Amino acid sequence: MAVYTHVEPEQLEKFLKHYDIGHAMSFKGLVEGVENSNYFLATEKGEFILTLYEQRVKLGDLPFFMTLLEHLGAKGFPCPPPVRNRDGQGFASLAERPAALFPFLRGVSTNNPNIRHCRQVGATMAQMHLACDDFPKPWRSNSMGAQSWHFLFAQCRDSVEDISSGLTEEIIQILAAVDAEWPQDLPRGICHADLFSDNVLFADDHIGGVIDFYFACEEFFIYDLAVAINAWSISPFGSFYYSNSHALIAGYQKHRTITAAERNVFILMLRASALRFLLTRLFDWINPPKDAVVKRKDPMEYVRALRFHLKQDSPTFYGFE
Amino acid sequence: MAVYTHVEPEQLEKFLKHYDIGHAMSFKGLVEGVENSNYFLATEKGEFILTLYEQRVKLGDLPFFMTLLEHLGAKGFPCPPPVRNRDGQGFASLAERPAALFPFLRGVSTNNPNIRHCRQVGATMAQMHLACDDFPKPWRSNSMGAQSWHFLFAQCRDSVEDISSGLTEEIIQILAAVDAEWPQDLPRGICHADLFSDNVLFADDHIGGVIDFYFACEEFFIYDLAVAINAWSISPFGSFYYSNSHALIAGYQKHRTITAAERNVFILMLRASALRFLLTRLFDWINPPKDAVVKRKDPMEYVRALRFHLKQDSPTFYGFE
Repeated sequence: MAVYTHVEPEQLEKFLKHYDIGHAMSFKGLVEGVENSNYFLATEKGEFILTLYEQRVKLGDLPFFMTLLEHLGAKGFPCPPPVRNRDGQGFASLAERPAALFPFLRGVSTNNPNIRHCRQVGATMAQMHLACDDFPKPWRSNSMGAQSWHFLFAQCRDSVEDISSGLTEEIIQILAAVDAEWPQDLPRGICHADLFSDNVLFADDHIGGVIDFYFACEEFFIYDLAVAINAWSISPFGSFYYSNSHALIAGYQKHRTITAAERNVFILMLRASALRFLLTRLFDWINPPKDAVVKRKDPMEYVRALRFHLKQDSPTFYGFE
Repeated sequence: MAVYTHVEPEQLEKFLKHYDIGHAMSFKGLVEGVENSNYFLATEKGEFILTLYEQRVKLGDLPFFMTLLEHLGAKGFPCPPPVRNRDGQGFASLAERPAALFPFLRGVSTNNPNIRHCRQVGATMAQMHLACDDFPKPWRSNSMGAQSWHFLFAQCRDSVEDISSGLTEEIIQILAAVDAEWPQDLPRGICHADLFSDNVLFADDHIGGVIDFYFACEEFFIYDLAVAINAWSISPFGSFYYSNSHALIAGYQKHRTITAAERNVFILMLRASALRFLLTRLFDWINPPKDAVVKRKDPMEYVRALRFHLKQDSPTFYGFE
């Protein structure tokens, strides 16, 4: 995790008094979560994840995330809704941070996804998009959306050529395309916006849980799909797995048909979403957070993805039929 | 933990093929263990801790640790014996490191020990001392024993006065006393040698597990007790809790009577064991391990403990009756 907050057993016991889940029988800090600190907690009543929100997650966004998880959970979506405390709240204060408890989901992530995984990821994403249709507004806006990229680029511009020669020009080219061609009107709604393989837990080859909704926001659906194509069908070394991309798109379209207008901007969305992760990784690479205990993610993976997408010009290449 | 080895799900699946415990249903890296990397693992057959041994634990010592845990487990001592794999081995290779699986023990450690905790810790230590009596030799020698302290001191001597003025003289004084007065012949056997509160798990106020035997070695029993008195009855700020010390000694003596000869060296043992942890913490403070993600432990805690013991001259002060 990026920042780790140590919770003393006595602090935990005091916190648990606000919940109806019994006493701690096991409590272990977990090495996961980039935006927060996580613990495994077992009590007489079950197993839980305790999450402490570090500075990257805004307190004001927490009610949105918590009610979103409850909304999705109520519709049968495989995500853990927060346990409400005795005051009916989904989060409370612990070690001077907002903290929430979630049921512990079984499942393991894969770093070697195949078409069975990808078909399910696509289907699950479409189900999420549809299930949020009636989620009460206001919806969280995308803090990592298109309007933030110029700013991010400016913050790390001086180091870009050190990462890879020619990269500055490529980024400028994509930012210009985003400025000129970014759509105004496309199907949109609540997106996960970070559906990487670490955030999908498979149990017996089926999706047992989707986690880490802390980038969830209102966005174009086709952008969310592009994020997932990058995450699930391009290897860290830049190899493209057509069958994974095809399966993800096909899985998605089983539940929601992608419109012609969405197809038309798909290449732009792939380039733009690759740029988004390239820029945030670059930023974190150049400005590693203090007290960080997380391995920084290599921005080069997204340089390779970006260059791959710059060479393509048709969505059929990615598996649209 | 000090060093963290990332295990990919695919590596884990391959490793688990050597065991008869089923497939991974949950797999989470844990923030604990100074000497190794630990994961929580759930399969159809149960819950486990997966430990990968980093460089601080010597490969040659692993058979001793593994058979010791089995020996103690077989006698009903609350420690987790390693799960043997299909080849009958207690450890195997994973991510280029020796790795072992243990049953996951319920229980939480306390950082606010009371006399009920201390009485049990004393009793459990005496039971361990007695239970190892028939453990097959050769026994692991104490790599952090008296003969190592001059060397450790030499490694950090230049920085000692920066930590606390006058500390160099105090250390020299204790090392001279150790050289002159260290006993040759006292009751000895296998000691835990690191029985801090993080290594004792309480479930419903009773000891549910003792963990982290990676300093276990042949040593004077009274030295092991002195380590525990430092750990359980002196606060990080140097306050002494007589009732905790008394309870720990009384708990111990319920199972094994401390001899007059042991009592006579008890003050020396307290000073010596405080020096041992002071020196290793100092060493780690000055030479933090690369890639370390652990918070260094403050050597000042043991400067305070040492100075406290330097002022005492009678074991009755600690609760001997």
